[in-house]
Amino acid sequence: MNSPQPNILVFNPDSSEAKAYAESVRHYGFTSVKSASTTEEANKLLSETEVILGWKFPLELLIQPVASSVRWFQSTGAGVDDLVADDSIPVDITLTRIIDQFGSSISEYVFMFLLHVAKDGSRMRRAQTEKLWDPFIPASLAGKTIGVAGLGSIGSEIVRKARAFDMSVYGLSYSGKQAALVDRHFTPGQWSEFVGELDYLVLTLPLTEATHHIVSKKVLISMKSTACLVNVGRGALIKEDDLIDVMQSGHLHAAVLDVFENEPIPKNHVFWTMPNVLVTSHLSGPSTVDGVSHFFAENVKRYLAGKALAGVVDKERGY
Amino acid sequence: MNSPQPNILVFNPDSSEAKAYAESVRHYGFTSVKSASTTEEANKLLSETEVILGWKFPLELLIQPVASSVRWFQSTGAGVDDLVADDSIPVDITLTRIIDQFGSSISEYVFMFLLHVAKDGSRMRRAQTEKLWDPFIPASLAGKTIGVAGLGSIGSEIVRKARAFDMSVYGLSYSGKQAALVDRHFTPGQWSEFVGELDYLVLTLPLTEATHHIVSKKVLISMKSTACLVNVGRGALIKEDDLIDVMQSGHLHAAVLDVFENEPIPKNHVFWTMPNVLVTSHLSGPSTVDGVSHFFAENVKRYLAGKALAGVVDKERGY
Repeated sequence: MNSPQPNILVFNPDSSEAKAYAESVRHYGFTSVKSASTTEEANKLLSETEVILGWKFPLELLIQPVASSVRWFQSTGAGVDDLVADDSIPVDITLTRIIDQFGSSISEYVFMFLLHVAKDGSRMRRAQTEKLWDPFIPASLAGKTIGVAGLGSIGSEIVRKARAFDMSVYGLSYSGKQAALVDRHFTPGQWSEFVGELDYLVLTLPLTEATHHIVSKKVLISMKSTACLVNVGRGALIKEDDLIDVMQSGHLHAAVLDVFENEPIPKNHVFWTMPNVLVTSHLSGPSTVDGVSHFFAENVKRYLAGKALAGVVDKERGY
Repeated sequence: MNSPQPNILVFNPDSSEAKAYAESVRHYGFTSVKSASTTEEANKLLSETEVILGWKFPLELLIQPVASSVRWFQSTGAGVDDLVADDSIPVDITLTRIIDQFGSSISEYVFMFLLHVAKDGSRMRRAQTEKLWDPFIPASLAGKTIGVAGLGSIGSEIVRKARAFDMSVYGLSYSGKQAALVDRHFTPGQWSEFVGELDYLVLTLPLTEATHHIVSKKVLISMKSTACLVNVGRGALIKEDDLIDVMQSGHLHAAVLDVFENEPIPKNHVFWTMPNVLVTSHLSGPSTVDGVSHFFAENVKRYLAGKALAGVVDKERGY
């Protein structure tokens, strides 16, 4: 039976972040909230912990008998590929991720860059730097075709905004549940057909065994040479070496990359300096203390009421 | 009586542009189309001209007896403040401007810059230049308040896209006809109240006696110091000296200016180098040959059918 006030452990390697999350969760009326930012601190608190709200938690701790009271692990992020891949989490601990929280910010990021690429924002900035009156005719998103791979809460929000920009919208998804959202829907067996007509391909898929390196040379060369690739999902959706090869051969107009196979990318990584590769630092869908705490508080209420939690991870499915 | 094929004169100071417009108009089935790019050329063709499709036309020609066969002047642009101000155009020549043509491109321009300013695109670009992994939390347009001054076809399209970005939308217009589009509507007597709560103020108004220098120091200091001003209307909507003073005193987060009191702005203009002033070269709503020719061809059909033309300019109103 759940206690009316579960013992909550907030973990974040950054101790000020950990404290900020704990403080915010307390504001929702939960009083038994402790925070930890090191393996040692977490280990000491585990025996009395029922719920963990965690980021980069030392998962190996969960396999110990001292963790037997832990019933539920809430990640502060949307992507849980690392948690799914780790066998240390006992099967009787429910794993949840943040959902329905990142669509707004990630779709704003996507359209910021789509507009920048389409309308040649770089040329506009350069003209100002050179004090050059340069009244060229910018291209438009209107009438172009966008393909959204992954039609969960993030992909759906990108589709909604693409409609406001009068784009044709194609989609590829694994479940097919949201197929009616898009003008043409493709299944995972149809990647080459899916990408062939696109002006913009946006990846919002979770990283699973099925999606790992799904955007490899075969898919990339099926894209139009004038197309633009945007990745706001996970770095390893793209086989980065293939992307580098293909772009260095002059294929693709641009790539906008917010996520990478290894983050942070090192100073000597070729992405930093490739023309037409726009790099950002995994910031398109930030987990904010307020947003995560609100989601978590709502989930704790469901937990106490014995209701189904939001964002439960299906380990078989991979997210 | 109108002839079944009116004699059309296409004028543009750029002779290749003039020829491109003429060629495009001929594609719509109009055979009597001539082009000119100098005052002399235009003067020679005037006696046999019934309709002018023109940009920067030497208006002084129209006051001559030789121009007495000219019935209709179609501007290739949306803004006709220069044509309205010029007394050379006889009252019996109908003046039309392009309408319903620029909403798509101008609204894309507006949201490109709103997203750039809101999410600090400059910081993202700087991080890449410095090869710096910099995962800051970008702000959002969602939940912010945008004010659109002018609710014609351009303003309405900005309102529509602002809805897709989940913004609160205020509007100010002179006619009030589109007041229902926005959450709060203001009249021309309410500028200070209108701008007081805005995070973004976008000017799409035509330039008339009533709107000339309407955004002066009084309006600017009524804005929040964190607000952003975007001008895609006409330069002289803003009293530029006041804007410079106010921004140099640290007021306003940013100004995005596509239009200026005098264009092109000279190399030594302070706007080029002011921090937080983003300058572009009157390119947000380009008149394209295809777009203008299509609009004009539809209007010629109305002309031949004796129907009301689209985009008729009311000289009293000023646009």
